[in-house]
Amino acid sequence: MATRSTIMDTNSFRPEMAAALDPETRRLTEERDVLGPAYRLFYRTPVHLVKGEGAHVWDADGTEYLDVYNNVASVGHAHPRVVEAIARQASLLNTHTRYLHENILKYADDILSTMPDELNRIMFQCTGSEANDLAVRVAQAYTGGEGVIVTAEAYHGNSALTSKLSPALGTAQDLGLTMRMIPTPDTYRLVIDGKPASACTAEEFGGWMAAEVRKAVADMNRHGIKFAALLADSIFSSDGVYPDPVGYLQPVIDTVHELGGVWIADEVQPGFTRTGDAFWGFERQEIVPDLVTSGKPMANGLPTSLMAARQEVLEPFAGSIPYFNTFGGNPVCMAAAQATLDVMCSEDTMGNAKRVGAIFKQAVTDLMPAHPCIGDVRGAGLYIGCEIVKPGTKDPDQAAALDILETLRAHHVLTSVCGRFGNILKLRPPLVFSEQDVDWFMSAFTDTLQELGL
Amino acid sequence: MATRSTIMDTNSFRPEMAAALDPETRRLTEERDVLGPAYRLFYRTPVHLVKGEGAHVWDADGTEYLDVYNNVASVGHAHPRVVEAIARQASLLNTHTRYLHENILKYADDILSTMPDELNRIMFQCTGSEANDLAVRVAQAYTGGEGVIVTAEAYHGNSALTSKLSPALGTAQDLGLTMRMIPTPDTYRLVIDGKPASACTAEEFGGWMAAEVRKAVADMNRHGIKFAALLADSIFSSDGVYPDPVGYLQPVIDTVHELGGVWIADEVQPGFTRTGDAFWGFERQEIVPDLVTSGKPMANGLPTSLMAARQEVLEPFAGSIPYFNTFGGNPVCMAAAQATLDVMCSEDTMGNAKRVGAIFKQAVTDLMPAHPCIGDVRGAGLYIGCEIVKPGTKDPDQAAALDILETLRAHHVLTSVCGRFGNILKLRPPLVFSEQDVDWFMSAFTDTLQELGL
Repeated sequence: MATRSTIMDTNSFRPEMAAALDPETRRLTEERDVLGPAYRLFYRTPVHLVKGEGAHVWDADGTEYLDVYNNVASVGHAHPRVVEAIARQASLLNTHTRYLHENILKYADDILSTMPDELNRIMFQCTGSEANDLAVRVAQAYTGGEGVIVTAEAYHGNSALTSKLSPALGTAQDLGLTMRMIPTPDTYRLVIDGKPASACTAEEFGGWMAAEVRKAVADMNRHGIKFAALLADSIFSSDGVYPDPVGYLQPVIDTVHELGGVWIADEVQPGFTRTGDAFWGFERQEIVPDLVTSGKPMANGLPTSLMAARQEVLEPFAGSIPYFNTFGGNPVCMAAAQATLDVMCSEDTMGNAKRVGAIFKQAVTDLMPAHPCIGDVRGAGLYIGCEIVKPGTKDPDQAAALDILETLRAHHVLTSVCGRFGNILKLRPPLVFSEQDVDWFMSAFTDTLQELGL
Repeated sequence: MATRSTIMDTNSFRPEMAAALDPETRRLTEERDVLGPAYRLFYRTPVHLVKGEGAHVWDADGTEYLDVYNNVASVGHAHPRVVEAIARQASLLNTHTRYLHENILKYADDILSTMPDELNRIMFQCTGSEANDLAVRVAQAYTGGEGVIVTAEAYHGNSALTSKLSPALGTAQDLGLTMRMIPTPDTYRLVIDGKPASACTAEEFGGWMAAEVRKAVADMNRHGIKFAALLADSIFSSDGVYPDPVGYLQPVIDTVHELGGVWIADEVQPGFTRTGDAFWGFERQEIVPDLVTSGKPMANGLPTSLMAARQEVLEPFAGSIPYFNTFGGNPVCMAAAQATLDVMCSEDTMGNAKRVGAIFKQAVTDLMPAHPCIGDVRGAGLYIGCEIVKPGTKDPDQAAALDILETLRAHHVLTSVCGRFGNILKLRPPLVFSEQDVDWFMSAFTDTLQELGL
């Protein structure tokens, strides 16, 4: 079983595919040379989107697509309330946080009211990478340590610091000298003390993970590195989506604290009602982190992110090191974030994620008997991971997963893959995904599996 | 002469000043506790802005202020063409660069057409910090070195990496082990081979700076560090505004190249027509950098930044290390950047910066004989630095500079200070600053100097 060199390689257009494209798509892909080789396009036939509404997007030819992938447009593409809030504030004023402004204070209060009382401070940045970059520095200042633990396939950002904490970027990116990895909490494949992880209680599974943290910290210490933080996304999305069993992170956070570290909850993926069970992923897991970061879904597409903190954890950094983010928390970004939050409440995206997510997951699960390529279906709310394997085994089948992706795209359904082997379908639509949208997806998915003989 | 511990301390509200505030301002400042101690407000009496237009802003009581500080609202606060472009694109679609979109390609072409042909690749991020963080990694991958040179009072960003390259943050922030500083190119105070820097030719002054680079690289090498890049803002804004003599950077960049490094032009401050002489600060200095970064003025307030590169310099990084910035280059940010650029062209902000900047600088210079606290007036276009000194000496007078700031604020004129001693007035208004605005400023400034007996 070969491992991918990077997660980015799994679903992407390559220049040698250009000959097969229609002239207009080919022109656009060729013009992207100006962006250099880091930019990747999804699909063998890239999609040229021009319009969106709810969980639907349209390409330049007017073809409608179902969006089962984009969590940035969290309350739906081009949501009119968010658009209006942005336009209104932009027409008034957009300046920085060295002047007083109501928007940042109102939003700070509203978003902190969704978190446990212990998290009583918040700072704003522009991207999830910036939030994680800052959170790690805050954790290091508080603990006096350098060592950070992440999971084996984690992705936490694109800055110099966070790239070194992102094994999912592949082997060309060096990892940090003071970081350590613990294994993916793979409830599908792991066997713990002779027992399949899927049969373990939360306590047993969490106990295994806590022991891994203990080993990682011991190794750090052996190298003279003091432990600072465990940085984790509570749905382990880049690792492959492992939300259950609920409660398994409690023994882990207890161990982190016992060993003198802090817990940084990277909520870029599971936060903002995504899991359906709670506003935040850590809340669903019934833990209270020391630092919380988020970004993508926060302002429906405007570059906006946050780092919330316990006051005493924030103090050593923020009380001594100057930190100013020119655009972070500006009135327009805060207006967009406020409108997004207001829509999440008024349209009950949490309830929708729970209700539609359950229907969605059940529908995919129901395909398993007839389609043995589906090895496992996991998820919470509108975040579902679907393992594509070689029938009768748990061996990942990345080639089949990519064929499924491309065939779904031909059926005008957009999604992607995740996990170490790039074989796990990542079903993560906007939070306004409806039952009709599930029907559309299931129809395209069953047709796809049939066409591919899977 | 004590040095400040941080540049952020020079113009800021402190909680012990709260008693003097009106109840509403006091409430807002107190509510900011939720943001933690890193957030600083300008002025002993913070300003609560709610509206802006051109170079003018209004507070919640309807009082109008002249903005002589904010370079983010580059084409003027709430410019209707930028607002309209944002609203239009936000109402259509806002997604990421893994789908094709025209906006990013059109903007990439248009902005690269303002640069020398050698700079033929561009990538988009959300903040200047992100752009510099990436540029340093690109330079390191290209050269195989780690060592970065900056000036003694430089500020290049708030990420873990760029903070370590930002001595202006003060002594609480550790600098990087592989970075070295060269002195501020202080044309006001330096004496080079017995000759005042102000009397040096560009070649002489550049020769001095090139020799400093040579020393820094020799010291790096002595410590086993390979030289990668010189990262500099060609107007040296955080150091204290040193734009002249034009041409002095040529011997410096030649030396950087001879020693195997690359030049990263941080154009967050001097770029986008600010200096009046050219679209870019490096262009005014007649050099062609290897990498270019910008952020603040690019999209009139929307979080948007760029890193332009020579193709061969970008290749080693971008061809092997995955880099994806979720919000970077998204259709809405690109629409805002495009509208900002279009306005810069159609309203000729470069011509305005040159014409009004020259009038502005001359008017401030004309005060010198009557006000010996003004030791030096430097600048290019709408970026002017005005040294406040103890009369008859070149000793910086930070206390007087702060009194001037506060008194100007009482006269409803917003500005700030920069430089190692925090004694240099930083006059850097939106690019649409008019002759009438200069008159307003000069009237407030002369009243201020008179009131303070300076």
